[in-house]
Parts: sequence; C-alpha cells; structure tokens
Amino acid sequence: MPQYPESPLMGQMMSQPLLISNIIRHADRYYGKSEIVSRRVEGDIHRYTYTDCHKRSRQLAKALANMGIKMGDRVASIAWNGYRHLEAYYAVSGSGAVLHTINPRLFPEQIAYMVNHAEDQYVLFDMNFLPIIEAIAPHCSTVKGFVMLCGREHMPAASKLDNLLCYEELIAASSDDYEWPQFDENSASSLCYTSGTTGHPKGALYSHRSTLLHSYASAMPDGLNVSARDTVLPVVPMFHVNAWGLPYSVPLVGAKMVFPGPAMDGKSLYELFEQEQVTFSAGVPTIWMGLLTYVAQNNLTFSSFKRTVIGGSACPPSMMKTLRHQYGIEVVHAWGMTEMSPLGTACTLSVRQAALPEDAKQAILEKQGHVIFGVDMKIVGDDGRELPWDGKTYGNLLVKGPWVISSYFKDEGGDVLEDGWFPTGDVATIDADGYMQITDRSKDVIKSGGEWISTIELENIAMSHPAVQQAACIGVLHPKWDERPLLVVVKKPGAEVSKEELIQFYDGKIAKWWTPDDIAFVEALPIGATGKILKNKMREQFKDHKLPIA
Amino acid sequence: MPQYPESPLMGQMMSQPLLISNIIRHADRYYGKSEIVSRRVEGDIHRYTYTDCHKRSRQLAKALANMGIKMGDRVASIAWNGYRHLEAYYAVSGSGAVLHTINPRLFPEQIAYMVNHAEDQYVLFDMNFLPIIEAIAPHCSTVKGFVMLCGREHMPAASKLDNLLCYEELIAASSDDYEWPQFDENSASSLCYTSGTTGHPKGALYSHRSTLLHSYASAMPDGLNVSARDTVLPVVPMFHVNAWGLPYSVPLVGAKMVFPGPAMDGKSLYELFEQEQVTFSAGVPTIWMGLLTYVAQNNLTFSSFKRTVIGGSACPPSMMKTLRHQYGIEVVHAWGMTEMSPLGTACTLSVRQAALPEDAKQAILEKQGHVIFGVDMKIVGDDGRELPWDGKTYGNLLVKGPWVISSYFKDEGGDVLEDGWFPTGDVATIDADGYMQITDRSKDVIKSGGEWISTIELENIAMSHPAVQQAACIGVLHPKWDERPLLVVVKKPGAEVSKEELIQFYDGKIAKWWTPDDIAFVEALPIGATGKILKNKMREQFKDHKLPIA
Repeated sequence: MPQYPESPLMGQMMSQPLLISNIIRHADRYYGKSEIVSRRVEGDIHRYTYTDCHKRSRQLAKALANMGIKMGDRVASIAWNGYRHLEAYYAVSGSGAVLHTINPRLFPEQIAYMVNHAEDQYVLFDMNFLPIIEAIAPHCSTVKGFVMLCGREHMPAASKLDNLLCYEELIAASSDDYEWPQFDENSASSLCYTSGTTGHPKGALYSHRSTLLHSYASAMPDGLNVSARDTVLPVVPMFHVNAWGLPYSVPLVGAKMVFPGPAMDGKSLYELFEQEQVTFSAGVPTIWMGLLTYVAQNNLTFSSFKRTVIGGSACPPSMMKTLRHQYGIEVVHAWGMTEMSPLGTACTLSVRQAALPEDAKQAILEKQGHVIFGVDMKIVGDDGRELPWDGKTYGNLLVKGPWVISSYFKDEGGDVLEDGWFPTGDVATIDADGYMQITDRSKDVIKSGGEWISTIELENIAMSHPAVQQAACIGVLHPKWDERPLLVVVKKPGAEVSKEELIQFYDGKIAKWWTPDDIAFVEALPIGATGKILKNKMREQFKDHKLPIA
Repeated sequence: MPQYPESPLMGQMMSQPLLISNIIRHADRYYGKSEIVSRRVEGDIHRYTYTDCHKRSRQLAKALANMGIKMGDRVASIAWNGYRHLEAYYAVSGSGAVLHTINPRLFPEQIAYMVNHAEDQYVLFDMNFLPIIEAIAPHCSTVKGFVMLCGREHMPAASKLDNLLCYEELIAASSDDYEWPQFDENSASSLCYTSGTTGHPKGALYSHRSTLLHSYASAMPDGLNVSARDTVLPVVPMFHVNAWGLPYSVPLVGAKMVFPGPAMDGKSLYELFEQEQVTFSAGVPTIWMGLLTYVAQNNLTFSSFKRTVIGGSACPPSMMKTLRHQYGIEVVHAWGMTEMSPLGTACTLSVRQAALPEDAKQAILEKQGHVIFGVDMKIVGDDGRELPWDGKTYGNLLVKGPWVISSYFKDEGGDVLEDGWFPTGDVATIDADGYMQITDRSKDVIKSGGEWISTIELENIAMSHPAVQQAACIGVLHPKWDERPLLVVVKKPGAEVSKEELIQFYDGKIAKWWTPDDIAFVEALPIGATGKILKNKMREQFKDHKLPIA
C-alpha cells in the first residue's frame, strides 16, 4: 500500500487492525443470544445464535488450517444465503484466507474459469449445486476438495467426485479452541468476480480494512440504517458482492438475521417475513415484484416490515409508491457495484428535503442518492473535464474511496483508474444538493449532435405504454447527428400499437429532440446469463438499420 | 505504530488515509447548503452553511501556515460551542497541526500548565475569556500569539497583551486557495487533558484514524444515531473531549448543526431548540435539569426534540422517565471518557429487549449499555482475573479499541495499559446480554470482607429521601470487615431526619449488609473545580471516624 508522510507528532491511540474476525467476536460477546434463522436447502428452518455461529466459525477455521489452508489462500463458496455460508464468511476471512464467492447462476464454464483463475483450494457448496460441481470438477486443477454444506445423511451414496467432503463432519471433527490471528488490515479478505458482458470475468479483491470501513459506513442511518432492534432478511445473495455487506453489518450491530436460502418466491419470503417479524430487507426490484404480487393476490399485509433498500437496478416509481403508500414501507434506493464493495450511494432525505411536498420528495427518492461518507464521486465529459452539478448535465460517473478497487485481481484489465478515480461505466447527473441519478450505462448512452440521450429514460416511457411488454433503446448511425435513438419493442401478447402511436406517446414527456427516430417491433430481446438485456448484441443486429430521415 | 504481519495476498482496494479534512470537504460537497446556526458570544444568532464553513476553514488553515504552524504543532482553543470553534477544529487538524482544546472553567494555573506542557504556539479564544488569557499570558512561554475569536469591532481598545490578534482579520487576509494535505492517518489530530483529582492533568492525544473511526462508529443507529434529517444541538462543550465527537459526526452525515454558545440556561436552550427545530441533543444531566425546570415552570412542550444522549454522569431515573413519558423524548445513556475519544457504550435495546414490559425496559435503559463496535470491555477483580457477566458481580472495568489511548501525551503516567487494556478507573457490572452498568469509581468502592459495595447505589437511595439534599458515601476502616460504609449527608434547608431514620430507610431497598454503618451530618461536601465531590478529601476528613461496632 502507498505510504503517506507521518507527522512529527503521531497520535497515542491503541493500534488495532480492522479485522473481519472482530465482527463475529463482538456479536458473540455482546449480542450472543441474538438469533440467526435460516431456511435451509434441506427445506426446514434452522435457528441458532451468534454465540453458536462464532463457535462453529472457529471450528471451521481450525478445520481449514488442518486441511492446509494458509493466509492468502483462496477458498470458494457456491451457496445460498444461510448460516453455513455465514460461518464460511468468518472462518475463511477471519483465519487470513480469502473467501471467493461464486454466483451459481453463471455457466459452468464461467465458474470453472473463475475457480482456476482464483486458484481456489477448496470449494464449499450447497447440496443442490452438486450437479454444477460434478460438471466443473474435472476442469478445476487447483481444487483439493469439494465440501458439501450438509450433514452425512444428505451426502450422495455415490459420486463422480473422489474428493468430496462433508461439511458437518469437518465441523464435528474440529474443536473451537482457535484464536483469530491478528494481521495487517490491508490483507485480502474476499474475492468477487464481475461478469462483464465482454471478456473474461475480473475479480474485485477486498481487504479487511475496506470491508470494515464499508460495514461502519453502510450501517449508518443514511446508509442501510441497521440497528440492534432490527430483524434483517438479506434477499440479495451472499454470492453477489457479499450481499451488500449485510453478513458483516448485521452481526456488527447485533441485529437478528434471517436467511431465505434458495426460496425467494413471494410466498416463501412472505411467510418468513411474518414468522420471524422481519423489519428490514434488501434486494433487487424483481424480488419485491414477486413478493408484492403474492401479497396483493392474497389480500395480505405486513405486520413488521418497515424498511427496504433497493439496488441492483432502479426501482420502478410505481413499485416505490406502492411500498411507501400502500404498505407504509420506507424505500431507500441504493447504488453501487462489485468494484465498490458495493455501496456507493443511498437515497435518503436531509433536513431541507424532508420538508418538501410529497411529489418533490418522491422525485428525490427516485434518484440513487448521496454518497456514503468515505466515497467521493464526480461526473466528467468524454474529455475528462468535471461537469456541473445541476441535475441535468449527464456525465461519466467516477468514484473513489477506501472500499473502491484500485485494480482487479492479478491486474486483469491493467490500469483501470483514471487519475486516481474509478470509472464506473455509468452515466449520471448530480443535482445541486449532491443527489446522483444514474441515467445510462456509458456504452449505451446515445450521442446525438454532441448531446447525450438517456436510453433508460426512453425505455421507461415506452414501458409505461399499456401495449408494451419490453423495450430497449440503442443508438444507430445517423448521417447528420452521428447517432439517433432506435427503440426496439416487444408487444404484450395480443396487444397492438403502431410505430406512429408510440412515437406520439413521447409528446410532452420528454424534450422533442430526444424522441426515438424509429421503432422496431421484435418477438424477443437478447438476454444474457444474468438476466440483463445484451445491448451490444442489439447494436450488432441493428447496425445496418436505416432511420427514416426527415 | 506496531506493525502486523501482511498476508501473502494483499487486498487491491484504494489506499486512502482517514483524515479529518475529508469530513468537512464531504459536508461541503454533498450537504453544502445545510446550515450551521450559532448563538454567539456577541449575543446574536449567526447562520451559515457547510460550504461557508469549509471555505473559512481553508482560509484559517492558510493563515496558520502563514503564521508558521507546521505539521504536529499545537494550537489551543478556549472557546464555547460555535462556528468559529468548528472552523478551528477543521483548519488546525486538517492542516496536520494539533488542536488542543482547553476547558475555560479550570483554574488559570491549570490552564497555564497545560498550555506550557502542550507547547501551544497559538491560543484561539472567545472574547469573554480575555481576562483568563491576560492572567495566563505571562506564564505561557511557547505562545507566539493569542487570537481573539471576533471581529475588529469587538477587539479591546487597549490590552496588556502585546501579541493579541483578531480572528476575523486573519480570515479576511487569507484566501481559500488551500488544498488539504494528505498524510498518515495515525498522525496526531487533537489533544485534550483530563483533570484528574490528583496530580497534573494528563493529555489524550487523538489521531485522525481514531477520530474518523470514532465518528463512523458513534453515528451508527445504536450510537448517537445521527442522520441527515437531524438538527443537532451539542450542549456538551467542544472543549470537553471534542463534544463527544459531534463536531465530526454531524458534518459527516450532513445534519444541520446548532451551537448554543455560552447560553446554556433553560430559557436560552429552549428558545434555540424551538426556533431551529432541534431534533437531537447531547449533554450532561444537569443541563437537562435546567431545561426541564424551565419547560415545566412555563407549561411548555417540545415541538421537534426527539432524542437525547446523556452522559458524563448517570441520568437520574426520574429525569429519564420524565423525558421519555412526559415529553416523548428518547433517552440514550452513554458512557465514555477523555481517554476513549470519548464514546465507549450507549444504551439501546436489541430485538429481544424491545419486546420486554416497560419496567424491564426502563431498568435496562438506566444502564450504560453496549459497547459501540470497535471497543471491547471486560471486568476484572483486583487480581486481574476476568469476572462473570451476571449483572451482579462488580469488577474493575477495562477497555480497548482503536479510539482508546495507549499512553498519555509525553508519556505522563508511564505505562498505563494492563496487558493491552486501558483501566478506566470505574467499577462496573456486565449482564448476560452484554449491558454494562457503572457502579462506582475504583478508588471509591468500599471493600467489606472481600465483597464490594457500590457507594453510588447507597448515595442514590439516600438522595431519594425527602430530607436529603446531598449525600456521599465513603469507606472507613473497620477492625473486622476492613472497610464499612459511612454516609455523609447534607440536609435540605429546614428539613429534619435522624441517623436512625435514614438507616432504616435502606430496609428492603438493598442487601442488609450493604446498609451504611453510620451517618454523619455536615453543612457542605467538599467540591472540586469541575463540580465533582472530592471523596479523597472526605476520606482524609473522616479517616479517624469511629464506627459504632455492633
């Protein structure tokens, strides 16, 4: 790490590294009886406490040491949100090794690539992922063993794998006579790969320091706002950017934790919310869509659910309003990315905005919000010059902070920073009060006559038309304006709408020159493995599209 | 600072020092229009914004550099809570120098001692402290200049001081073209002396790292719980352990700040609370007593005040109940000390306790609470062995954490740690849920037949008797039990109570063997400069007291 000059007079405070093991030790010591409740892959509900979790984490850490895992070694997990995954979070990182969380929804080839790239020595996995493990095992040259997160009774009678281990047997064979080692806080703690639309996945390699600072910052009232009085259900998966840090911040504050396991449908979530009296949850909009549909269809209400943080993609305003006004649930928009641990911003009101009328408040809450203290951001033009904070000017969003990466693992992608700032690949506006709003991805924004057009805004308008099921907007070449918007639309089954009607639908909703020049109706849009629309594929598909020239 | 071993694999996150200047820069950039309102020593109300504060802080930093202040140099302040004091907080520490905050209520000899011990180069002071400055100036050999925190119009026409400077002139003469320097986060940032009852004051020398970690931790929901929607009035003085960190944590979250200046009487506070719609305040119990008396006498209510943190000494249960039930104000007990930056614990409920009946909740809220994540604590016997957490066993309270001192400035007092832990000098219990309760000072606790008796508990009972104005309990020698309690009482004017009546008053309120062996009635108790009862003086006074031997 770069050194900064020391003062001739240094402070005389205790020197203690910020370590992940401190969190679980604290949770055990001060909130030892607080519960961790998990819906398991086995199908049942499992309950225990932070004291139990700390004990088993130490047992696992000791088992890993006996298996030859040393500081800096990588251990992978392919698992849902549950208590055994949490034990791995603390045992692996706490012992100085590096937890490599893997998204099971990726293609097996991608998973094998990541395991090899990370040089994982062991892979811990939930039992329903055995087929994935069997598919990748022959291609994973560094892995000494695959640990199935279950008891002996759930282990397969026979397996293609000759190095299959049983998690509960490892725990049972290991004592908890284990002291967390103390080491430099900049040591690597966990690893998460981003699945970009092009090229190989690249790894973000977090440190104990970045993780602890992120935990403190994200727990603050204008972040995720987690307290000891909360019961927290992280829907956002632990294989995806550490579930937005909740596996750290929730034990840190001593809140009750509820894990949904693989059951993320509306009914299963609702039952767990009510049964465990969940007060706070975090997830992507599609999850809440499923939950709200179930609740509406069955005429139900929430008896404890008070607050949700929504990220991953923007929460549709109508969903935000339903959550806020119909169910009285506070909705906090958050934004971040794998390279940011992930939290960058959260959208809460300050004294002055809290006094505004409801419409004005809602308009602010639809933005991505303020940075959490620690992160700094700016918007710049293609020439790198900083752009004004007027809420209108679009620019490439750059960030920096102690929980933002400085480079990718093994320096894939080379020098990624621009003058010390990380380019997020997002295009955003920032208003005079410091609220940021994502308007597009840098590579998707349409550059028309030197001005930028947000494809997200054009798509949102199209999708509010009753006949439109899905819409995606791309720029296509234009002789005069360089690029102009082409809207590609999938109609709802049985619904009809003409090109002219849809173009007219934009009237008064947007600056005239933003209106799409043309509309193409298609049967389906190209979708990637993680559910995102592949705009690069669309651009390829429509690269010869001729716009009607007025 | 001690080094910890590095992992063979270090994280790849941005390396950024935790610096105090980051806070004011963040407040300016993201909450620039949020207000700072100050009741000034001049008598009027002053309003400006974080952007203004950041600009003037940079002007002051530049002025200090021009005056020859370098990294590590000490600059003192003797000032009330106000915007100019806040500017000094950021300008002095932000530039790498060390802000030495001084309590103006100390004796001039003590102040002069501290200025000389700290080798302060400049002293910034509020204009009403000019007499103090004139008294100490001849004895302060290191001071190059005394800066009066006011405009030219308030400077004295003539002064005994030949190095008296005008603050506003310094600011006006200096541009804000100043970049905050980047340096090692363990560099010293500020200095605060403890006024022990014996010996010279000793300095706690904070670092940027300790200050920022304390800010993050204290802002969390179970700490001071400060958000951008709060309007915060710190009654706790900025000359006393950095006003519990509020001058840092409030700008950090972008809340509106309200400074009371020297006017801490009930009427002045109430007017400011209502006028500025204060939501949160922090202070010692005596301040709230004054405020509540004023409010009750005038049949007033609070229209915005929602939450208060009370520390310094325990909040009388009756006051806590009045605040909670009569005015609907949430009361959070907090505990800490100068050596702890100061926050160690805050008392909030967790999921399980929040479900308890009101009486049980009140009983918990009267404790000092849970440690804020970062701090660890334990209770030990005189032999150093750790004692059980059962809510009954008393022990010496030891703490550690990244915002706890490792030694005093210039190593006064030598090696203060015990096996890496800081001995607080408090005696406490910790219950099975991790709630700590202070029961006495180590040097005051009465050791009777190997068991400990809390003088605070005996005093609280005595003071609930209608005829008792003040009571203090000390241990006096006893032939069989080593020590037994003697209660020393000041009766209310005109009230009467006999020794026997008072001893009987303890019946059923406490274990029989705790009952004071004797009671002495006096006209007054010996009180020190900071308002505390001097028990060492009492022990001297009563050292030959003969207890009635049954």
